[in-house]
Amino acid sequence: MARSNFPLFHSVCGWLLQKVHKSIGHPRVRLSLGQDEAFPAADADVLATVSIADQRTLAALALNPEIGFGEGYSQGRIEVQGDLVRFLEAVLESIRSANKTGWHSKLISGWLDRMQANSLRGSARNIHHHYDLSADFYKLWLDPQLAYTCAYFPEPFSTLEQAQVAKMDHVCRKLWLQPGERVVEAGCGWGALAIHMARNYGVKVRAFNISKEQILIARERAKEEGLAGSVEFIEDDCRNITGSYDAFVSVGMLEHVGPQNYEHLGEIIDRSIGDTGRGILHFIGRNYPHPFSPWIRKRIFPGAYAPSLAQAVTILEPWDFSVLDVENLRSHYARTLELWLDGFEQSWEKVVQLLGIETARAWRLYLAGSIAAFRAGNLQLFQLVFAGAKCRKIPWTRAHLYSEQQVEQKDREWIRAIS
Amino acid sequence: MARSNFPLFHSVCGWLLQKVHKSIGHPRVRLSLGQDEAFPAADADVLATVSIADQRTLAALALNPEIGFGEGYSQGRIEVQGDLVRFLEAVLESIRSANKTGWHSKLISGWLDRMQANSLRGSARNIHHHYDLSADFYKLWLDPQLAYTCAYFPEPFSTLEQAQVAKMDHVCRKLWLQPGERVVEAGCGWGALAIHMARNYGVKVRAFNISKEQILIARERAKEEGLAGSVEFIEDDCRNITGSYDAFVSVGMLEHVGPQNYEHLGEIIDRSIGDTGRGILHFIGRNYPHPFSPWIRKRIFPGAYAPSLAQAVTILEPWDFSVLDVENLRSHYARTLELWLDGFEQSWEKVVQLLGIETARAWRLYLAGSIAAFRAGNLQLFQLVFAGAKCRKIPWTRAHLYSEQQVEQKDREWIRAIS
Repeated sequence: MARSNFPLFHSVCGWLLQKVHKSIGHPRVRLSLGQDEAFPAADADVLATVSIADQRTLAALALNPEIGFGEGYSQGRIEVQGDLVRFLEAVLESIRSANKTGWHSKLISGWLDRMQANSLRGSARNIHHHYDLSADFYKLWLDPQLAYTCAYFPEPFSTLEQAQVAKMDHVCRKLWLQPGERVVEAGCGWGALAIHMARNYGVKVRAFNISKEQILIARERAKEEGLAGSVEFIEDDCRNITGSYDAFVSVGMLEHVGPQNYEHLGEIIDRSIGDTGRGILHFIGRNYPHPFSPWIRKRIFPGAYAPSLAQAVTILEPWDFSVLDVENLRSHYARTLELWLDGFEQSWEKVVQLLGIETARAWRLYLAGSIAAFRAGNLQLFQLVFAGAKCRKIPWTRAHLYSEQQVEQKDREWIRAIS
Repeated sequence: MARSNFPLFHSVCGWLLQKVHKSIGHPRVRLSLGQDEAFPAADADVLATVSIADQRTLAALALNPEIGFGEGYSQGRIEVQGDLVRFLEAVLESIRSANKTGWHSKLISGWLDRMQANSLRGSARNIHHHYDLSADFYKLWLDPQLAYTCAYFPEPFSTLEQAQVAKMDHVCRKLWLQPGERVVEAGCGWGALAIHMARNYGVKVRAFNISKEQILIARERAKEEGLAGSVEFIEDDCRNITGSYDAFVSVGMLEHVGPQNYEHLGEIIDRSIGDTGRGILHFIGRNYPHPFSPWIRKRIFPGAYAPSLAQAVTILEPWDFSVLDVENLRSHYARTLELWLDGFEQSWEKVVQLLGIETARAWRLYLAGSIAAFRAGNLQLFQLVFAGAKCRKIPWTRAHLYSEQQVEQKDREWIRAIS
């Protein structure tokens, strides 16, 4: 009540709250500063209330809503009363409706975004920022195999563990891997997919990753499973891939490449599988070119970029690859993230011990914001299957991805018939 | 033998044969001129021999191989001994291998190709060129419903009739049409799909086509089936589509649009289905931007253009549509065309009566060349499903396309649960 003695100051804060509310497209949320400033007024029907602790935080929000919100939330100077995910979803949707026009400039800004170029050295720095967080942290909320990419839920209510295994099978079936084939994986995380391919599909895998801690864990696992002879984990940038392979696999790596390196990536794929191999790119994408939020790039994923489908396809066009299949699994990523966030919240105290409260809150915001973005359609998840111009062993239909053994069998007979 | 009296003339023709052979990348075929000139020599192992009747035809081939071959073949001045399709496939593959480098210039030439701009008037002229050939002609070799687009063969050896019905169901299931919904079809041919959707999926259809003869036949059919109340056939350019719809369908129309009109097409789709509808584009595409052969554009499909996938996706990106699913059905188009060519050859005498020998031979070459192009991968067939940013009724997986009724049922329950 003390502040009501300063009517001008009072009205400036009210004006700022209103300005921030407008900048996010007037969603059904209330912004409040302390006890006696709020927009919209108390009787409006809202999904959530954002409590801003002080004028400095409000000013930061007004100057740069995304960074201001991310930093304010992480530091506990912004709290959200109500469902954090629903709140973020409402904000994303209202911003999007407000910005429906002006796509030309969005397209251009997307293409021109070169702020954190992924040179070899830059990539290593960017990847370590994220993935060299202790594996103990990820173990708190990922599935037992530590698959840190979108799962595939054959049924909407499959468990996370089932869905991660189903995702690996979905990828392997899309590539119709055959025993004895050679596979190169670009960006292998803790090695779950590489090990799954070798164990369940009888292929030889060389898997690249520049995160030292992940590679060490992956090697240990392969050894434990007796697969050290069929899976080789290499601590190196995938730009240094050598050798020739039947299939190129990349799950959750393209986001770290950056469009300025797409031409080079196409070259690497071409020299790996030539014109007879096939490949899959599994990546976070967008409906049109657009950078990640500046806060995500600053705090969570330096150098990350989610391409539009057209941008991703231009990796392949110069090399005469045929796109065979694209599937958008956006709702599966929303579900994956919901389960991750559940686990994260259940381990909240341990997370805070490991990361400290500020980083823990930043991660909560990142996970919740990602759920919101996949639900609202700001982000997409594409699985893109392609093959070289002379690849002829292509399944006749996609039925084998969805059906019982006998259909697969029929398909294999067909492949033999045409080979 | 007379010519051997003119050794210089003799060697010039040999040199020209060799030059033509080189320009097509030295495939395993022999080119011969009259009785005593051939390249390569008689003992080489070849798939086919191309007999060139006279020096004028050889000169035309040397100057412009594609036009020269197309015109020479149509006029009977070039004959192919051996399997015409295999011969064309071998040529396409050898040209491709020879041109593997230089993709930058190919990309640019593809994008810049604006020779036959599809203005409203231009489109009508171009479409009439092809589709106003008497329906009696198409009835000789298409399926009974006259579907003149790629069929979908659930089994490689399904009949053409089965596969055309399966294609229509594949399209309808990909769009998860619900009874009572409104559908707009851009480019409806003789109306098979529009009638199928209305009859089997209970939707209301407005179908556009600028070919008068096709529209008249389509209307007659709808009337015969008692569907005149649910399918409206409109003789107009799809740029004049008005009204709002749940789904936008276009099968085999994009090829006639031309990339200079893609932005406008996106606008039409957006105003038809807004941000809650969904749509499908079924079209002949390519691995990278490249024009059709000049002969095809001259004789068969004036103004036709098959886009790369990236080009097609750029129709949708400005409007925030999400690409949900892309399927490449190239091998299904090769199979469809094989069955068309079978029917065409079986009706050869009637075809010649209707079209005259020169046009009949041109059509044979076009059908055979298309089989070769889909087999060799010069052409692709994409089915691209997309939805507006706020479309939420999206099936959880694609299993419903491939499985029995109960899975579809489960999917519908899921849709209801999230709606």
